[in-house]
Amino acid sequence: MTPTITAFQESPDQGQGQARDMRVRWALEEVHQPYGVRLVSFREMKEPEHLRIQPFGQIPSYEEGELQLFESGAIVLHIAERGTGLLPDDLDARARAITWMFAALNTVEPPLVEIEAAMLVEGDKPWYAQRLPLLQERARTRLDSLSRRLGDAQWLDGSFSAGDLMMIGVLFRTKDLGLLEKYPNLHAYVGRGESRPAFRRAFAAQHAVFEASQHA
Amino acid sequence: MTPTITAFQESPDQGQGQARDMRVRWALEEVHQPYGVRLVSFREMKEPEHLRIQPFGQIPSYEEGELQLFESGAIVLHIAERGTGLLPDDLDARARAITWMFAALNTVEPPLVEIEAAMLVEGDKPWYAQRLPLLQERARTRLDSLSRRLGDAQWLDGSFSAGDLMMIGVLFRTKDLGLLEKYPNLHAYVGRGESRPAFRRAFAAQHAVFEASQHA
Repeated sequence: MTPTITAFQESPDQGQGQARDMRVRWALEEVHQPYGVRLVSFREMKEPEHLRIQPFGQIPSYEEGELQLFESGAIVLHIAERGTGLLPDDLDARARAITWMFAALNTVEPPLVEIEAAMLVEGDKPWYAQRLPLLQERARTRLDSLSRRLGDAQWLDGSFSAGDLMMIGVLFRTKDLGLLEKYPNLHAYVGRGESRPAFRRAFAAQHAVFEASQHA
Repeated sequence: MTPTITAFQESPDQGQGQARDMRVRWALEEVHQPYGVRLVSFREMKEPEHLRIQPFGQIPSYEEGELQLFESGAIVLHIAERGTGLLPDDLDARARAITWMFAALNTVEPPLVEIEAAMLVEGDKPWYAQRLPLLQERARTRLDSLSRRLGDAQWLDGSFSAGDLMMIGVLFRTKDLGLLEKYPNLHAYVGRGESRPAFRRAFAAQHAVFEASQHA
């Protein structure tokens, strides 16, 4: 059964791969699972048909026969459990890889998204310039910890796993905030992720959606 | 092997059960798994010994023989996979329960934590009063979606699962923000969680830590 995922019909990031479907595409490519994509417009995302699958009116979602999932973390975990190469066989190592998935999504991503949201929604507010250092400091606290833990290692815990995929997906997404420049090891870590063939195929696929929308 | 978790030595919330060890305690109680607790001070949390287990210098962490985990989401998932009663046997239903865990942590919790952080860190800033409605609106968008999806159901997807545990853990944690009052079904949902014997045992255990610290 070929799964179908949803992605933005109109890429808000001009095809830079910053939307959350990128992580899901990357995971599918890592396990060599063919997939279909249903593009949804911003209007369709808030309509009952999509809300039945994605109750928060976002992308991505995942459909595979009767199964309907949402949340990039849950989808990537499902793909990793069904396929091979994204989760270690050893049960302890597997639990640690999943820990890094949650760390990426619940500890590292929120302060980065907060900066993005502030830029987008409060960039014209009088307090924006005063708040930005506060937000950057909060993000750096997390990046300091992550950088210290990664050290000189290639990946967070042994071989490349769904934990790395999710962490790199989060860091890649917020690359243009300029926060990674202070951390050569995190910068190189993201680069290792980006150079994986599966990442490149995923990136090309989402970029093609943007290209097509330009010529529509 | 009895697992050991970490929790705050000095409860920042005066024993109200809002720290993230509460979710882990609750999951352990649901599966009837005895556990030990190691209390850490704010100073110890930032020291190398704790950072080896929890690289972001937070609580909770989880140790079980050689296995060391952190992130409440990863720990609860590990407990749910080892025990019985928190994840359905049916694989599709299991994947959906895990989806709600990620939704709780990555979609519902961040805007609630953002309000808490603003109150704590920016409560005395001139922009606080102007920003608060923005933050509340962001949180309500998520709560609206959650309330609509839950509807009249007892739990989010069939029987009580780790997804409900995590969602109720998140909503319970931020109960005193006053945001739930607009949603009678979410309020009742949290109440159903709180009335579970396992929740009560977990709450009593973390409250006892606070009580003990008062008489130390």
